[in-house]
This record gives sequence, structure tokens and C-alpha cells, in this order.
Amino acid sequence: MTDVSELPTPDEPTIAVLGGTGDQGLGLAYRWAAAGLSVRIGSRSRERAEEAALKVGHGVIGGTNEEVAANCDVALIAVPWAGHEPLLDSLSGPLAGKLVIDCVNPLGFDKQGAYRLDVPEGSAAEQAQTLLPLSTVVGAFHHVSAVLLLDRERAELDPMDILVLGDVRAATDAVQGLVDRIPGLRGVYGGRLRNCGQVEAFTANLISINRRYKSHAGVAITDISPH
Amino acid sequence: MTDVSELPTPDEPTIAVLGGTGDQGLGLAYRWAAAGLSVRIGSRSRERAEEAALKVGHGVIGGTNEEVAANCDVALIAVPWAGHEPLLDSLSGPLAGKLVIDCVNPLGFDKQGAYRLDVPEGSAAEQAQTLLPLSTVVGAFHHVSAVLLLDRERAELDPMDILVLGDVRAATDAVQGLVDRIPGLRGVYGGRLRNCGQVEAFTANLISINRRYKSHAGVAITDISPH
Repeated sequence: MTDVSELPTPDEPTIAVLGGTGDQGLGLAYRWAAAGLSVRIGSRSRERAEEAALKVGHGVIGGTNEEVAANCDVALIAVPWAGHEPLLDSLSGPLAGKLVIDCVNPLGFDKQGAYRLDVPEGSAAEQAQTLLPLSTVVGAFHHVSAVLLLDRERAELDPMDILVLGDVRAATDAVQGLVDRIPGLRGVYGGRLRNCGQVEAFTANLISINRRYKSHAGVAITDISPH
Repeated sequence: MTDVSELPTPDEPTIAVLGGTGDQGLGLAYRWAAAGLSVRIGSRSRERAEEAALKVGHGVIGGTNEEVAANCDVALIAVPWAGHEPLLDSLSGPLAGKLVIDCVNPLGFDKQGAYRLDVPEGSAAEQAQTLLPLSTVVGAFHHVSAVLLLDRERAELDPMDILVLGDVRAATDAVQGLVDRIPGLRGVYGGRLRNCGQVEAFTANLISINRRYKSHAGVAITDISPH
């Protein structure tokens, strides 16, 4: 983890969405770009990234994961869990000194639905911090529905909270700020990285809720006024 | 786990709150009794249980954990985590064939706050189901603040959701019904028992949130209309 004083948190950061051709990455790329932020979409294939960037519009640029990681202030990791370790293993150099947001949920699926997978480091976010020792990792955006993010009919999402977890206050504050740029979302500090595993795994519960109630469920925290 | 057809779910069940002299148990005993339900408080010491019952009022009766477990339709397990296994080990007989609600959060505490403890069975609720093979265990009430439950100035709590987890639909439906008896609370199905570990552990995140925002935080699920 980098020293707080070294963490660059420009007011208008360039955000690289790694694994940005999946629904969660595309959805957040769209929301941030629509809010006026500079966004780049990364993928293993430059061609697929450029296609996705065109689809999102709002000036978004595509490139390989390596290219966009090298040219960003903040990176969002949005790959499927199976691709998490190999991707980060290759990017510790380009992401050194940067703020890295991890929204990956390590889940398994069977006939009864989704369930938590064991992660030796405790959580995807802690695995990322281990693989990226010179970056500052924050967990966030685990629970917001990609369907809602991608729905262009909704300029403003129905109010919900995004839990932001990390061990460096400047980093969680910066990510809460990036959450708040998306109309309808509120960034709420949710604890240290060691408590990120249950936040990631809770997505399995939201999947059960969605199945039962035919919803795109999210989370709101009661009794707080963070702003 | 008992067969669904054998599960007695009377409309006006007698509820035994085991470990009912702690804040969470006392708070739920008070809310259910105030809503007109028949409630008994259990403790290792009959004297302490009777004192607690008098304090709650509303006709609540106290007794030993064994006594109230033998004379109830539904039991709520509300002991500290350290007492969970020894208590349930001794009650598989009196709780056979009954609905058991587990609200216990297996958490450790240090200078940095609360954190998830590893439970070999996956969660307190799964441990309860293992120790009570003839009962039907449901996880619920992990996140509601005891401070709010015990606050008699609030006849109705600010709206929040109680996640109800279990593998038997009749049992989770019955517990959702018991949640809904408490003004302000809404019972929401939250998935199977195998996904209860992260719901229990999420209480560590709420403790971090309370510390940061000086709140008594709870959870609401967005985009659902369960009733």
C-alpha cells in the first residue's frame, strides 16, 4: 500500500475500467462518462475495447488493459473472478502509486443459486492489495445492478448506497467522491479491507433476493447522514 | 431439519428468547411482547431471567433456557457467540420439531474494530442447524440495533429491512411474519442458510459505519416490494 501523502487524487481523474467490456464495467464507464469524467475502457483485445468505448460514447476511449492502466489516475477492476488474479499479476507496474477500485465478487453458481467462494487472502480486494503492493486498493460497487447502470432511460438511479472499504482514508474519501458523481448513488464508508469479504459475498444474497422478488436489488444504509 | 409439513407455525406463537438477558434478546422480547405476542425470556439463571422479564413487562415470563425452550413454539437464539455451541448442544431435545431463529454474529474485536470469525460450519445459523438436527433453523435479526429496539420512546422504528435466511420456505415465511409484527421492520427473504455467514459478518461493517457516522445503522434493500 502506498503512503497516503503519495496518493494522487485529482479532482477530475482519468478512470481506466479494466475488464470494461463486461456489464458492470460498461455500466460504470457509462455513468462516469455521462457525468463528465474522462474514462477509458480496457480489455485483453484492443478491438473489443474500442467497440465497447464506441457503444458507451461520451468520449470514452478503448485500449488494452495494459495501455489504459498505464494512462489513468484511478483504475476500476471489473473482470470476472476467474480473471482477477492473472490480470492483476500483470499490472503491478502500470498501477503502481495509483488508486485501484475493486468491485469483483468471488461467487460460485449451482442449481440453488450463488454462493461465496473461499479466497485465501480473505476477499478479492485483499487479493488485489497483495498483488498490487504499490497501489492503494479500495473495495466498492459490489452491489449496484449492472442492469440499472446500463439503463439509459434512467438518467438518475433510484437512491442507493455504495459501500466503500479500505485502509487509507484519503483513498476511501476519493472513491466516495467518485460514487457521488453518479446521480442516485451515495458513497458510504463501509470499513477496512479485512471486512470486504462479506460485502463481496453479500452479492449472493442479492441474487437470491432478485430471484424471489423479481428485482434488481441494492442496499441502503439506514440512520446515517454521511454528507 | 424437520419436514416442512411437520413444522408448527401457529399464528400467535409463544416465543422463547434464549440468552434473553442480553441487549439484542431483551430488545426483541420487548418489541414482540409490545406487539401482543406471548414471550418468555430464558437465561442460565432463572433469577436473572425473571428480573429481565419484569423489566420488559407486557406479561413476559422468565425461566431457565431449558424451561422456556420446552414451552415455546419458536425459539430465538440470542446468546453471545462464545455461548452459542454449549447452549445449543444442550437443547436439541426441547427444541426438536420447532422453529429456531438465530441472530448470533460470530465476530472478533480488536483496536481496529470488529471482524469476521471463521466458523467451521460456515455460519452461526449453520452451526445451529447442525447441533439441532430435528429443528428448522432460520437466520434473522443480525443487523437491527439493540439500542433502537430498546428505545421505548420509539413506538415505531424508522423503516428498515430484516434479512431472513433459511432452506425451508414455510419457516422463512413464518419468520418474515414475525418480523412484520414489529412496527417499522420488514422481513425480506435473504437466501439459503449457506449464504448466512456473510450476513452475520456484515454486522462488523455496520459497527465500522456506526463508528464513522455516529449512527445506529441498519440495512434497507432497494427495488423490492415483498408484500
